[in-house]
Formats: sequence, structure tokens, C-alpha cells
Amino acid sequence: MTGGLARFSLNQQTVRQWSLPELVAGCAAAGVRHVGLWREPVRRHGASAAARLVRDAGLSVSSLCRGGFLTAADATGRAAALADNRAAIEEAAELGTRTLVLVAGGLPPGSRDLAGARERVADALAELCPRAAGCGVRLAIEALHPMYASDRCVVTTLRQALDLAERFPADQAGVVIDTYHLWWDDTVAGQLRRAGEGGRIAAFQLADWVTPLPEGALLGRGQLGDGCVDLRWFRRRVDAAGYRGPVEAEIFSPRLWARDGAGALAEVLDRYRRFVLDIP
Amino acid sequence: MTGGLARFSLNQQTVRQWSLPELVAGCAAAGVRHVGLWREPVRRHGASAAARLVRDAGLSVSSLCRGGFLTAADATGRAAALADNRAAIEEAAELGTRTLVLVAGGLPPGSRDLAGARERVADALAELCPRAAGCGVRLAIEALHPMYASDRCVVTTLRQALDLAERFPADQAGVVIDTYHLWWDDTVAGQLRRAGEGGRIAAFQLADWVTPLPEGALLGRGQLGDGCVDLRWFRRRVDAAGYRGPVEAEIFSPRLWARDGAGALAEVLDRYRRFVLDIP
Repeated sequence: MTGGLARFSLNQQTVRQWSLPELVAGCAAAGVRHVGLWREPVRRHGASAAARLVRDAGLSVSSLCRGGFLTAADATGRAAALADNRAAIEEAAELGTRTLVLVAGGLPPGSRDLAGARERVADALAELCPRAAGCGVRLAIEALHPMYASDRCVVTTLRQALDLAERFPADQAGVVIDTYHLWWDDTVAGQLRRAGEGGRIAAFQLADWVTPLPEGALLGRGQLGDGCVDLRWFRRRVDAAGYRGPVEAEIFSPRLWARDGAGALAEVLDRYRRFVLDIP
Repeated sequence: MTGGLARFSLNQQTVRQWSLPELVAGCAAAGVRHVGLWREPVRRHGASAAARLVRDAGLSVSSLCRGGFLTAADATGRAAALADNRAAIEEAAELGTRTLVLVAGGLPPGSRDLAGARERVADALAELCPRAAGCGVRLAIEALHPMYASDRCVVTTLRQALDLAERFPADQAGVVIDTYHLWWDDTVAGQLRRAGEGGRIAAFQLADWVTPLPEGALLGRGQLGDGCVDLRWFRRRVDAAGYRGPVEAEIFSPRLWARDGAGALAEVLDRYRRFVLDIP
């Protein structure tokens, strides 16, 4: 009945033209069973009302995006980041997801010290991990593409994300596997094995790589199958590493946002069947 | 007399508003002793006339940019690429530089096979290395930032560049150290040591990393000191690895190109003294 969609999850940003109620109704109508949510729209709706809406529709929340931004060098910025992440942990728990995605944060203004910023992320994780575990939430460290290293995420490879996660128990810290960010790295197959062996894969997200990149490089993610990422290879490797959780389509694309939400989702599902699942 | 500029080289693209004669005159006037040249302007001037012009001004050519684009999967494309690279080798020899910079090339249209493309680069190097050596030229493999992996260069890290270079004798194949492409990589210190121990550093190029990236991500390189790259750290590490050759400023920046060439060069030299050299 699900047409291969049992594990498919729709990340909310992929169809951000939809309100939360539209997202829930649209997913239910399309046979989608999981959604990845973002904090801002959840907060606009109210976290507990959002949780009820999703639950009543029979959906599960595969992940909440996102905490993180843990690289501030000053005490005030650091305290604010920790408080914000504690709130995100509580929101994740309220939504019933075990997975809070963390984006590390970039370099503070004027800084050239990548190694120092990475250590501050580790320090913050040491404070946040036990708190998250107490709420039944696992922190999922996401490596972003190196083109975001200065302004968004000093964690640029899956190896670095695992180096960070492995400082903490596996039920407290995991990693996100995102094809858009990792596809170029020829060490990724070995790191996926490592992640699987350690039980560290907390989330698996899909987007394709297309060029030219738009100004700012943020909103140019490709519809599945439009680019050069071997998505099926990734899905097989992540499966082989033992991951059995949801597979989230997370595509920041103005082209998709300009469309009717149901039409955009239908295209994503068609591409998921053709470029991600095994050919029947 | 040189004010710390003995090793400084001006890559032609940094002041591409200058013709080749203007470049040579401008460098001589500013006390710059080395220039990095590009094939297109050299060809427009005529390679042998360009060689004479540079030599008569007492300048040396630190490198010629660029050969490469060796990833074509079809016989015709491959033959054309090899022929073009043989011509580039001859142009480098005529200009009296030992260093021909190679950019590997991206994925062929429709391909998702990064590993295959990288192997084709190795195959082409096997054909080109002896030819280059016969002309007294060394092929300098340049890793580009991973944001160019699909459309420009499947070699994305210094480790990969060294893996390729080390298949061939050190006098035939080296690597380019370019701060813009490598700054984000936390394994780069170890790879710089490896490159030095093997005598593989063929060129050292400087640009800073600034955001936001412009559309297409190609022309957003930062003036030295404007961004977040610790240029002095890189220069010290490259020095410590035993490299004693020219240090090229190669900055693709429309902001610099819009200026008077002499003013742009003066600013680059000021920044080189303040952000690259040791503080006196």
C-alpha cells in the first residue's frame, strides 16, 4: 500500500509553502508516514499543538531541525546558545522525536581559529548531551559542506562529526548523513561503516547537488535525480551500515517552493522511487 | 630593497585588467620579481614574445595556469584533452617555468561516477608526466574546494592530490597548495608535512575566504586579510615543509579588477606584508 514509502520522511523545508496543518494533511493524503520539522514553524503553531496535530494524523516526527550554533567565544553568546539548545531539546521531546539535528555554527566575526571553534562545540556538547538524554533525545551532529565552514558549520566532514559524537555515549550523540553535504568526499564509505558500527547514524537526509550555485550558496539544493549525487549508492551504504530509520527528503529549492505543495511532494516521491529505492 | 617581496609572485588573474605588457611593467615598477601567467593572455600575446617580454624585464614565471580537464569519458574528448595538455607543456617550457598547474576537471554531463573520473585523471597523468619531464616541466596537481567537485575539479583535498602525484616521480608530478581551496580541512597540516617530505610542493597560492559566495561561486575570492584564512599559518607550514619557491597571490575578485592595476597591486603587497610575512 505504501509503494515503498514506509521509511520516507518529508522534511518541512522541502515544501515550506505549506503551513503545518497543510503539511500534515498533505503527507497523510500522499501516504507519507514521517515528517522532519523545523523549530520556527513549530513554535508559530505552538509545540504542544503541533505535536497533537502530527500524532492525530498518525505521523511520526523523524527529526527536529535544529539546534547548534555553539561556537560563540564570549560568555554571553555561549550562555545564550546553551539556553536555546536546552529549549530545542524540550521541543524535540514534546514532538516525540528522538533526534535533534545540530549545526555546529561558523567562525565568530573576525576569528580565523577553526580548531578553537571546533573545541567549543565539543565543550557545549558535553553540557547538552546529558540534558538531552534525560529527555529521551539524541543530539545528531550534522557535517555541512565545506563551503559553509566559515559562516555556518565548522564541522565539514563525516569523520569530524564522528570524532565529536564519539566523545559521548552513542545514545546521547549521533550524526546526520546528508547526501548534499557529503557526496564529494572519497572517504565517506569508510566513515559510513564506522558510523554504523558505532550505532551513530541518527538521521539520513537527501538532496541532490546541482550547479551553478546561487548567490549565498544556501538555496541551490537539487531535486532528487536532477544532480550528480548517486543517491541510491548512499541509501544502500546507509542500509548496509545497519540504519533502519526514516529517510528524509530535505531540499531547499525555490523552484519547489514556487509550486503547489501537493505537486512538489508528488514529484519528490516519484524521484525517491526512481533514484533512491532499489529498482523493483 | 625588496621589502620582503623576494618570493612574492603576482598571478596574472589578480590584475586581469592589465595587458601582459602592463603586467610586466607594473611588476617591475613595484619590485615584484615573479609572475604567474595564464595560457589565454599568453597565447594572445604569442608565447615566445611573452617569454621574451618577461625575461627582458628580469622577471621569472612562477607557474603557468593551466592544463588539466582530464575527465572526459569518451575517446574524442580524451584525445582532445591530451593534445591540449601537450600544448600547455610546450608553452610552459617556452615561458621558462617548471610548473604547469593542472585542474583535474569535473564530472562529464550526466555522470555520477566521481571515482571513475578520478581514475581517468590518473590515466591521463601517466601519459602526460613523461612528456612534461622531457620538457623540463612538472605537472602541479591542484585540489580545488569541494564546491567545485562536480563541474571543475574532482580532486577536492590535498590528500587526494598527493595520492595522485605520488604515483609518479617527484620531478614529474607535484601539488599546488592554495589557501582558498584547502583552508577548511583539518587534515591539511599533516598533508603539508607529507607533501614536503616527498618534495611535492610545486606551487603555493594565496587567496582569502570571504562570504557570501557570489552566484556560481567562482569569482568571490577574498583580498588577503579580508577573510578568515590564517594565511600566515599556511605560509609558515609550507616553509616548514621545506618549500622555498615563489608565493603567488591569485585572487579572482571583481572588486580588484574594477580598480587601477597599480593600486590593486599595491594593496595586495601591503596585505602580503601584513598577513603573510612574519611581523618584523
